[in-house]
Amino acid sequence: MGKEITSREQDYSQWYNDLVIKGNLADYSAVRGCMVIKPYGFALWENMRDVLDRMFKDTGHQNAYFPLFVPKSLFEAEEKNAEGFAKECAVVTHYRLKADPNNKGKLMVDPEAKLEEELVVRPTSEAIIWNTYKGWIQSYRDLPILVNQWANVVRWEMRTRLFLRTAEFLWQEGHTAHATAAEAIAETRQMLDVYADFVENWMALPVIKGVKSPNERFAGAEDTYCIEAMMQDGKALQAGTSHFLGQNFAKAFDVKFSDKENKLDYVWATSWGVSTRLIGALVMAHSDDDGLIFPPRIAPIQVVIVPIYKGDEQKTQIDEKVLAIVKNLKAMGISVKYDDSDNARPGWKFAEYELKGVPVRMAIGARDLQNNVVEIARRDTKEKTSVSMDGIESYIKTLLDTIQTSMYNKAKQFQQEKISQTDSWDEFIQLLDTKAGFISAHWDGTAETEDKIKELSKATIRCIPLNNPLEDGKCILTGNPSTQRVLFARAY
Amino acid sequence: MGKEITSREQDYSQWYNDLVIKGNLADYSAVRGCMVIKPYGFALWENMRDVLDRMFKDTGHQNAYFPLFVPKSLFEAEEKNAEGFAKECAVVTHYRLKADPNNKGKLMVDPEAKLEEELVVRPTSEAIIWNTYKGWIQSYRDLPILVNQWANVVRWEMRTRLFLRTAEFLWQEGHTAHATAAEAIAETRQMLDVYADFVENWMALPVIKGVKSPNERFAGAEDTYCIEAMMQDGKALQAGTSHFLGQNFAKAFDVKFSDKENKLDYVWATSWGVSTRLIGALVMAHSDDDGLIFPPRIAPIQVVIVPIYKGDEQKTQIDEKVLAIVKNLKAMGISVKYDDSDNARPGWKFAEYELKGVPVRMAIGARDLQNNVVEIARRDTKEKTSVSMDGIESYIKTLLDTIQTSMYNKAKQFQQEKISQTDSWDEFIQLLDTKAGFISAHWDGTAETEDKIKELSKATIRCIPLNNPLEDGKCILTGNPSTQRVLFARAY
Repeated sequence: MGKEITSREQDYSQWYNDLVIKGNLADYSAVRGCMVIKPYGFALWENMRDVLDRMFKDTGHQNAYFPLFVPKSLFEAEEKNAEGFAKECAVVTHYRLKADPNNKGKLMVDPEAKLEEELVVRPTSEAIIWNTYKGWIQSYRDLPILVNQWANVVRWEMRTRLFLRTAEFLWQEGHTAHATAAEAIAETRQMLDVYADFVENWMALPVIKGVKSPNERFAGAEDTYCIEAMMQDGKALQAGTSHFLGQNFAKAFDVKFSDKENKLDYVWATSWGVSTRLIGALVMAHSDDDGLIFPPRIAPIQVVIVPIYKGDEQKTQIDEKVLAIVKNLKAMGISVKYDDSDNARPGWKFAEYELKGVPVRMAIGARDLQNNVVEIARRDTKEKTSVSMDGIESYIKTLLDTIQTSMYNKAKQFQQEKISQTDSWDEFIQLLDTKAGFISAHWDGTAETEDKIKELSKATIRCIPLNNPLEDGKCILTGNPSTQRVLFARAY
Repeated sequence: MGKEITSREQDYSQWYNDLVIKGNLADYSAVRGCMVIKPYGFALWENMRDVLDRMFKDTGHQNAYFPLFVPKSLFEAEEKNAEGFAKECAVVTHYRLKADPNNKGKLMVDPEAKLEEELVVRPTSEAIIWNTYKGWIQSYRDLPILVNQWANVVRWEMRTRLFLRTAEFLWQEGHTAHATAAEAIAETRQMLDVYADFVENWMALPVIKGVKSPNERFAGAEDTYCIEAMMQDGKALQAGTSHFLGQNFAKAFDVKFSDKENKLDYVWATSWGVSTRLIGALVMAHSDDDGLIFPPRIAPIQVVIVPIYKGDEQKTQIDEKVLAIVKNLKAMGISVKYDDSDNARPGWKFAEYELKGVPVRMAIGARDLQNNVVEIARRDTKEKTSVSMDGIESYIKTLLDTIQTSMYNKAKQFQQEKISQTDSWDEFIQLLDTKAGFISAHWDGTAETEDKIKELSKATIRCIPLNNPLEDGKCILTGNPSTQRVLFARAY
């Protein structure tokens, strides 16, 4: 029948790969660590991108486009940033190929076409953008600059996984410039809220908003805010980050502005990004052993309709009913696919659209026609109901909303269940090995302890939650005094 | 007052650069030959992209995303394609930087991180895509594949110009796979029609559809179809191309399918693309010495409203009227900007929005309020009219349509005037040097003659127009027999 999917219990990691590949989201490519995003996966990304883009514009941002390449001398200007990314940079050193004299029909890099200065393929664009902003900013009247870019970036990762960690990935990166620290911090927090709003209300995935410990900060940032999501295997996944960059990049690129009193000061900066990694989170958070489960608000296909018939006459009768329903659903802004292809049986189609995570399936046969009903199946709960054709469109519209809410609630309950609290190191380790999830525990605030905990447990501090209550306690590892609990987890 | 623009007569090339830079479309960057697309320029590109994307989807195409990098061994597989692009390839040879021991704070390419196989930054994606399609295609049931990609590409050009020719540019590239040559040719032609439709009806720029001579074909194509536009200086600009690739890439990457009779055959291919170069064409075709002139259907801002007032009381009265109009215009889908900033005088704003090519400007002062009128200025003709505020929204809507049509008609008339016909070589040269434009002349059909004409006149065969009438004649250069006229021009 359908395509075989490894179960979560059998091999969680293989289950994930099966869903991505057999669900037609993406494919491996001939380039090490790079993937092909297939049309079905890209339609999902387009839906996500369009919603985010609207949110960015509604908060006053405009899109722009900056070069793919960063000259090495610019790349190294902000030292922490450069140090943080140097190990994973793809570098262009030559600008020409030529015929290989020793190898007919083959090409070789032309040694005479060596660049004077090497070009780094952007792993992130702060350097090239702040070098550009230098020319755009003179006075406070030029601020704020609220710019976003949708782009590809390259980080040469040694171990890659489809969507979760690839050498090239697609993302958006916002880069803003402000006259005051307060304004930049407000922007950083605003964009964190935008990300949380998107992931929770569109992807149906609850997140914990927080701030990173110094060890986990973006290279070159003063503070990194993040949203953390919980996957079904109890591992955390960082779903988006928003950085307050202070004046670090303004200083590195000498970007000053004169304020209203004509006093010169360095510009304050933020940057923030989410990537195609979100697709990995979506897949791992919601899906089951039969395939993908997409939340209706971003599903590429929200409703699939499968006819069940024998002979042309039945088909014609079903067509007539279905085409009217399709038209009505489309007019309501619902994306619907009528799969009346005759090269697969209904049972095969059912399995295929379950694998592909289509939220609602409608099946209609000859007897249904007589009874003026259709069979509606929910992908998330697998419930099937016979529903009257009268007002079926508004039934479906309501059902899509119900599924969206229900998926969020289920994920929220799971997330809550996966938050534990402990004050004992032994229990800390035991929890990680059995229940996994987030563990709320005291930490003495030092980088050394954080490193040591990571080394001993493979867990990292995912975040210090926003509005974290202060509480006197003792560090889970060292027993040193601590003022608050932080969230640990093993993570993607 | 405003920013100074070089006139066309003074220096056409500088005029173009002034418009692009002072009109805030783009900026030079720190990377040789690469540009920054500024928010205003990118908003224009977004409008163009969104219309094209809709057209592609309406003709059955889906978007996908393929890797930025092409391993050298794949790149060289289709020999003509490889040969055509080898000279302009940016090549990634290393995947890591490290601290430079001899230069504190600086980085160097880590010689130990040399790639086993070099990666070409895609100049076009046929190779990586056809290598992928090999895994997607087994039988006729897998065909057609109708895929498009929006992406950045890199071609290392020695002489670059903003938008017209940059080392990195943004484009879309459609790549389709078919079971028959006829179907692939129909696809090639269909996409040529889509491009012509877009450029004529949205960019208000008439084009000539044709097919390229063998010398001007895309490297690896059997036939290249193109649309050619005429710029104000009498030079032609290739605005889009659609290639019938035959079975060349299927053979290079061994992509076969079994047909209904279970017979194996190579797959037939097309590719087609337009790029940010279109923005260069738009600027050069319509603008004048005061700045950009954008056609309403793709203008980032369609209407700008400038208040003229003294004191807060007048401002409040004007605000009240204008905000209602803004709301109504937005509800009609018209993009409008109310520029009530108080850091520039109305005259400065008028010049600024003329420079930026906003199609309609509305000015409103205290006396206008009393008389219930506004002043409307058309950017294209510079006509000013006093118009009643009653029904001003529908007036503006109609005016935008009028401007769109009028801009097209003006460009069409110009294009027609710039087509000459001659049978004399001396006149051919004289026309090129004085009137310029397209010259319809006989050509003997050989590549040698084409090369020689190019060498002697700097003119190339822009295209053999579709449905070209057959006509016996003698080649303009050699006097050898010819069966049809072709269009020559000097070109961008």
